[in-house]
Formats: sequence, structure tokens, C-alpha cells
Amino acid sequence: MKRYAIGIDVGGTNTKFGVVDSDGNILTQDRILTNSDAPVEQFIKTLSLKLKPMIDHYGGVENFVGIGMGAPNANYYKGTIEYAANLKEWKGVIPMADLMEKEFGITTRLTNDANAAAVGEMMYGVTKGMKHFITITLGTGVGSGIVIDGKIVLGCDGFAGELGHVTVRKGGRLHKGTGMRGTLETYASATGVRETVLEFLRENPNEPSLLRAFKEDEITSEVVYNCAVKGDAIAIRTFEFTGQILGEALAAFVLFSSPEAIVLFGGLTKASDLLLKPTRQAMEDNILTSFKGKVKLLVSTLKEADAAILGASALVW
Amino acid sequence: MKRYAIGIDVGGTNTKFGVVDSDGNILTQDRILTNSDAPVEQFIKTLSLKLKPMIDHYGGVENFVGIGMGAPNANYYKGTIEYAANLKEWKGVIPMADLMEKEFGITTRLTNDANAAAVGEMMYGVTKGMKHFITITLGTGVGSGIVIDGKIVLGCDGFAGELGHVTVRKGGRLHKGTGMRGTLETYASATGVRETVLEFLRENPNEPSLLRAFKEDEITSEVVYNCAVKGDAIAIRTFEFTGQILGEALAAFVLFSSPEAIVLFGGLTKASDLLLKPTRQAMEDNILTSFKGKVKLLVSTLKEADAAILGASALVW
Repeated sequence: MKRYAIGIDVGGTNTKFGVVDSDGNILTQDRILTNSDAPVEQFIKTLSLKLKPMIDHYGGVENFVGIGMGAPNANYYKGTIEYAANLKEWKGVIPMADLMEKEFGITTRLTNDANAAAVGEMMYGVTKGMKHFITITLGTGVGSGIVIDGKIVLGCDGFAGELGHVTVRKGGRLHKGTGMRGTLETYASATGVRETVLEFLRENPNEPSLLRAFKEDEITSEVVYNCAVKGDAIAIRTFEFTGQILGEALAAFVLFSSPEAIVLFGGLTKASDLLLKPTRQAMEDNILTSFKGKVKLLVSTLKEADAAILGASALVW
Repeated sequence: MKRYAIGIDVGGTNTKFGVVDSDGNILTQDRILTNSDAPVEQFIKTLSLKLKPMIDHYGGVENFVGIGMGAPNANYYKGTIEYAANLKEWKGVIPMADLMEKEFGITTRLTNDANAAAVGEMMYGVTKGMKHFITITLGTGVGSGIVIDGKIVLGCDGFAGELGHVTVRKGGRLHKGTGMRGTLETYASATGVRETVLEFLRENPNEPSLLRAFKEDEITSEVVYNCAVKGDAIAIRTFEFTGQILGEALAAFVLFSSPEAIVLFGGLTKASDLLLKPTRQAMEDNILTSFKGKVKLLVSTLKEADAAILGASALVW
């Protein structure tokens, strides 16, 4: 009897994976560097070194119903990763499901990493039982998973839900990966927060700020948060600005699918009300009266790695 | 045996209705003024005077499977019209399905007018057989119907697909009905085209234009089209500007649900390539490489009234 699934979350930096039982317990987990500077075959080998012992420990291949994998630009229909801007040397179309099946001898299903997180949230998180919601991951980039009628929206080709690449400021910041300008990801990500604060520091050279004690390359979204908590005006304005843009974008998403909730994930959510208050305000300001006050803005309570591993594993149950 | 359905399309100005057979033939149709200046009971009475004889002609109530009705701000789940900005005296929540059933003795189902048109398009129009598409109605206002996996997206409360109210120009034109600023409807509608051309005429007082021969209240989107066809620069720029904004908005919708096609409906589509070319260009400019050149931009080939009547009737089959 097949009692276990493997969930794998491929990120731009780390790949997290674990063995999950049918009740959604992660029995064991580990991580490797994704290292997409090297060819994908190298990645499979490194993963194999850690994953095969796990499989053996839980009784071998015959005990596993499948491998579920969340990855950037993954195509559920084809089992491929296609033109992923953040996976440097994994160029063009990577037949990831085939490569995995060949290595492990276990059926493998792929989906977009943000979709996997949304599934994890729906099965085990704050949207348990909800049929209409959108998850937005605010990490290095901005990912999204859209759930309508209890199902992930994949679109005609498996690439739906690329909300991080919606243009929110016409002619705005250049996104180096996509070549597009003013997209949500260039503002409402950890990278975006860093860029915003550097802009604010440059534009207001005479305004004192705790941030001036840091070298430019030391300034991360976490440093900005720490300064904002201490009352630093530039740091606080940075989160207000980020929340304003994020909230405007969320308003458009609400008008699209009328979700019961929007769930925020990822590093930036640690900023809590510094980010959430302006986000909520801007969202409410940009929706029709009939929607106002109705859409819940939630922060995921699952550990990020857990949501992604659980969500990915849910692909194969 | 119940062989017929009634399809009704309630618009801001006219209400069109007809008897439809199960093959999608409109056997007879007529229209009345919606006249929402008067109470909704008056509307039901006026409709009844024309619709009851039709029902009798086709063998009476027992021959009808139901009444399907498309209307602005209609709620499929509740059978109500709620806070419709364009239906003046029909304030608050109108229990339209109940009122209709009481008057006609036939089961009645309601949906958003744009959703009804999308269903008509899916069953009988250019998207016949498609499972992922979005319809955008460019009329007095801007309506939308979103189809994912062959089903209309209703959202958690029946109000999904309000794409005409997405903000496209922060702090832009005031929408008198909603109080919102810079929404798609204030630009990409017949009303919006009129406003744009009046702005362009005012801003360029020394530029000659055929439009200056018209009084301000004579200038409609049709007049602008006629002048554009004759090569009038201001009229042509008006459609370019409209298409630019519409295309940017469509790009965001594409990133959301990755549709196979976007279908444009309604009066403005008569402008054909004057509007479609800049729309397509702006859409392509604002999507990820992986989407470029893939999404079909189509114009509905159904007569507008037919699509809405057919789509509404399809609610009850």
C-alpha cells in the first residue's frame, strides 16, 4: 500500500523537500542549494543523494504514491519548467518530471511554486475549507496562486496566476529578469523594498535616518523593518509606499475573481501592520462599494517551507 | 415537454428578450425601454404586456423550462440585482427572480449581463468549444465575463468579473456612478471615448479637426469613428489612446487567468483596427515573453442582442 508522498519546493536559492503522510504530517525534511548556475542534471544528482536515503527509510519506492514538485514557471500540464527567469542555467524548457521519474522511479507532478503553496494553505492553513482565495508570496519575487471553486486556476496552458508581473506603475522600475517596467514584483518584493528605501535615501539626502549607518549592500528588507520598528521615518514610508502599490494591485485581483480572502506569504509579511495597514487601505480604496470591507486580508500561519512541501505533495494524493 | 426558454437582457437603456429553443434559435424577440427612473414593478408590468403573449403563442407556461435574465450587478446565487449604478431608481437590493416568478409563474435565474453574453459566446459564438476566455463588453460602460475551465467565474458571492472597475490610471477620471477614479470604464467605453476626444480638442485648440464642426453634445463615439475613418488626427489619436489603456488592462487579465482568447463585444468594436491595433500592441507590450503572441484578440460575431438573449436563456437549460 502506498502511504507516503514526497513534496519538493524548488526556489531560486534553496530547494526544500520532505516525506509527507496522507494526514499532512511532514515526517522528515531537508534542503539543498538549488544552484541553478550548474546544469539541471547536477541538481538531480545532489537531490538524489539526500532523497534516496529518505525513500529507503520509508520502505522504498513501492510505498510512495508520487513526487509533487513546486517550481518557478512550472507547467502542470506538461511537467516542464519553462523559461524561468530566476533559474539561471536552466534555460528553455526543462523536462523536470521526466528527469525525476528517470532518477527516482516515482511518478512526478509539477506545478508553479506559488500554486503549490496555495494548495498547502487550502488543505492545512488559514484558508482551510475556503473555495475562493488568492495567495500572494512576497519573497525575493512576488508569486501568486489563485483558487476558484476550490481549484487552482491554471489557464489554457498552465501559466495562469502570474500576478507578480502585472504592471502597476506605467514606465516604472525595470525588472531585469523580464525586461518589463513597473511590475508588482519590482516594488512589492524584498528586492523592491530595498530599491525603494535606497531611492528614498537618495532623494532626501538631508533627512536623518538610522539606515544611513548601513552600507548600501547591507540594506535588506529586514534591516528596513528593524529601523521602521524603531520609528525611522524613511523606513516607515518605505513600507507605506510598498503597501500602497500592493493594495492597489490586490484591488484589481479582487474585482477579477471576488475571493473570500487574500493570503500573504513570505519574508515581507514579517513587517506585519507596517505593511498590512497601508495595503488594506489601498485595497479598500480601489474596489467597488459592494466589495468594501468583505475581503479578508490574511497572513499565512504555515511555515513557508511547510506550506510549499505540503502543497507540492498534495499534487499526487 | 418543456421545449422553450426565455432569455432577457436588461440594459441601462433597453431590455431585450426572446423565446429560444434548445438548439439556440431565437424564435421571436422584442424590446422595451428599461426605464429605471420608474420603480421596478412598472418594468415588470411593461415587460409582461409583451412577454405574456409570446409565452401564450408558444403553448403557455408549461412549455417553458425557465427564464434566464442577464442584468447589471445581478447576483446568480441570490437572484437579486444589487446596487446597480446604472439603474437609477432600482435602489438597494432588488429581488428580481422572485418578482419575475410571481408575475410569470416560471422559474427565473439571474446573472450579470456580461456573464450572460460570455455564455452566449461560448455556446454559439467565436469561442464555441473554448474553455478559457474573457469577454469584454465595450458599450456605454465596460462589462466582463470570465470563463475558466468552461465555467463562468462567479467568485465567493456572485460578483466576480467587474473588470470595468479596475483602476488603470491612478487619480484619473472620476466615475460618477462609482465615485472611483481612473477606472477602465471611464476610458474604454463609448462615454470614455467621448470624454477623451473632448479633452483632446480642448488641449489642442489650434489643431484643426473635423470634430470642431459638431456641437459638444453631438459628439458620440460613432461620430469620432466617422471622423477617424476620414483621417482626422484627433479622432485617430482618441482610438489609439483608448486602445493603449484597454490593452494595458487586458495584459493584467491575461496574467491572471491565461485565457486562450479575449473577445470584445459592443458598440466600440465597430472602430475595428483603429481600436484593435493599439489594443493588441499595448497588451503584448505588458505581458511576459511566455504569453506573447499566444492570446487571441477576437471580436464577437454574434449580434449583441442575440448573444445576451442566448446567453441568458442558457442559464436555464
